Amino acid sequence: MKFAPLALALLALPAFAAPKPTPALADILAAAPASDWRSIAQDRLLYLETPRGRVLIEMAPDFAPNHVDNIKRLIAAGFFDHVAIVRAQDNFVVQWGVPDADPKPSLGSAKAKLPGEFTRPAKGLAFSPLPDRDAYAPQTGFAAGFPAARDLKTGRAWLVHCYGTVAVARDNAPDTGNGGELYAAIGPARRLDRNLTVVGRVVEGMEYLAVQPRGHGPNGFLKPADVVPLRMRLGSDLPAAEQVSLQALRTDGATFARVADARRHRHDAFYAVAQGGVDVCDLPVPVRPQP
Amino acid sequence: MKFAPLALALLALPAFAAPKPTPALADILAAAPASDWRSIAQDRLLYLETPRGRVLIEMAPDFAPNHVDNIKRLIAAGFFDHVAIVRAQDNFVVQWGVPDADPKPSLGSAKAKLPGEFTRPAKGLAFSPLPDRDAYAPQTGFAAGFPAARDLKTGRAWLVHCYGTVAVARDNAPDTGNGGELYAAIGPARRLDRNLTVVGRVVEGMEYLAVQPRGHGPNGFLKPADVVPLRMRLGSDLPAAEQVSLQALRTDGATFARVADARRHRHDAFYAVAQGGVDVCDLPVPVRPQP
Repeated sequence: MKFAPLALALLALPAFAAPKPTPALADILAAAPASDWRSIAQDRLLYLETPRGRVLIEMAPDFAPNHVDNIKRLIAAGFFDHVAIVRAQDNFVVQWGVPDADPKPSLGSAKAKLPGEFTRPAKGLAFSPLPDRDAYAPQTGFAAGFPAARDLKTGRAWLVHCYGTVAVARDNAPDTGNGGELYAAIGPARRLDRNLTVVGRVVEGMEYLAVQPRGHGPNGFLKPADVVPLRMRLGSDLPAAEQVSLQALRTDGATFARVADARRHRHDAFYAVAQGGVDVCDLPVPVRPQP
Repeated sequence: MKFAPLALALLALPAFAAPKPTPALADILAAAPASDWRSIAQDRLLYLETPRGRVLIEMAPDFAPNHVDNIKRLIAAGFFDHVAIVRAQDNFVVQWGVPDADPKPSLGSAKAKLPGEFTRPAKGLAFSPLPDRDAYAPQTGFAAGFPAARDLKTGRAWLVHCYGTVAVARDNAPDTGNGGELYAAIGPARRLDRNLTVVGRVVEGMEYLAVQPRGHGPNGFLKPADVVPLRMRLGSDLPAAEQVSLQALRTDGATFARVADARRHRHDAFYAVAQGGVDVCDLPVPVRPQP
């Protein structure tokens, strides 16, 4: 019996040795069960073809059902065969829509204006909170696979603007967007949270928007000669051979919690100091080809 | 006397009317006294010439005196006539140094390795704290004109990785950098804080680094055929006609406090919802030509 304290002391020793390196993202993902991944449905996946490469956008109907529906109607009307990158403001947004100088394409059955879907009820929304401090919201986390925030005092939840967040451009009045002009955040844009309708996020090819040379007109708008023609289609409208089957890591599973924790406490041969925290926008959701 | 309560009620009325819009940045800056601006000295200003345009970097000798000195020695040796963009990792960093395949240029009087200058004593450092929550540090703010953080428990302060922060690439060992290979953050990189030596920040032309097409090798390294030759010089070595005279807004003055507050509480014809907070990396320090 008198050796018990010594045995306990020995057992405790590893706590004083160098801690084990944080597992690498690739190793965490390789160990994930299939059930921690979800497939991205083709009727939620936008294919934005740019001269530099293909950009894929997952839409978020749980947050912006009316705008997602309107975007589908605009696609059905052929509206998005007429759009171009019209704005690239450094460290803020890249935006695409019908250039001002061009004829206005038909909206088909789509609406010309929609009330903003800036926030939604937090009630009824599965929300995986992060423990980390945030400058903009009482609580951040993930919901429906997207970076999000909520305020339990007001009972509202919303998608937040991170790198690759796609949202609806509008004029000053909150009901002047319809999804026909969209932007992707390329820099800090949390000040837009709750002011704009977020409709989704780029899941592949964000770099092709990010490298767009910036515009030097007011707010980064491009000169008419510099706009970059694009085309945007819906996955479920494409022939099977052109569809890209992707899976996103579930943000409510144990694997994503491990990803966040490894980022928060990262220390390894290169990172000597772990931060102890992570920003909701510094946790990109892993995406992979459907196995 | 009995009308006094009514008079008070009338005086209080404006509190219930629509609040005044937050002043625009341009208006706040236009009202700034000359004393709220500081000139950027030419012996702290790096001129990085890229095929896309000129990038100007203000160095931070208050945080990395040895690396700043070593960079000047490397410039004097002509080392930076031989560098190129060698890495562009989307949403993280763009990096420049001597391509692996090239002959190694002379270091002149510069050191080949330097101990990291990852943090410095908080004592003796003028620090303007922000009231906002932060995921990575107990306190953020500005010091010597740069976005920074400090931990009063450990007594250390450091420069943080925001968009445009310039720091010293290294291998795994903390003393393997010398300033001859540098990177600029183009996306969230706070996980590098306290692990890398920050030597400065881009004050003009950051867009010319940000639009660099991304590399698709491991960690975004470019293929040898894709590297982009650059040249980097020091302002005080240039003929007066080539020097660019800039002023930065002092980060310890009343005007910068107003800039931060306008960002934190922005509401105007477009922004209906004010965030009530701002991230240290979402407060770019205004820069203007020397008047």
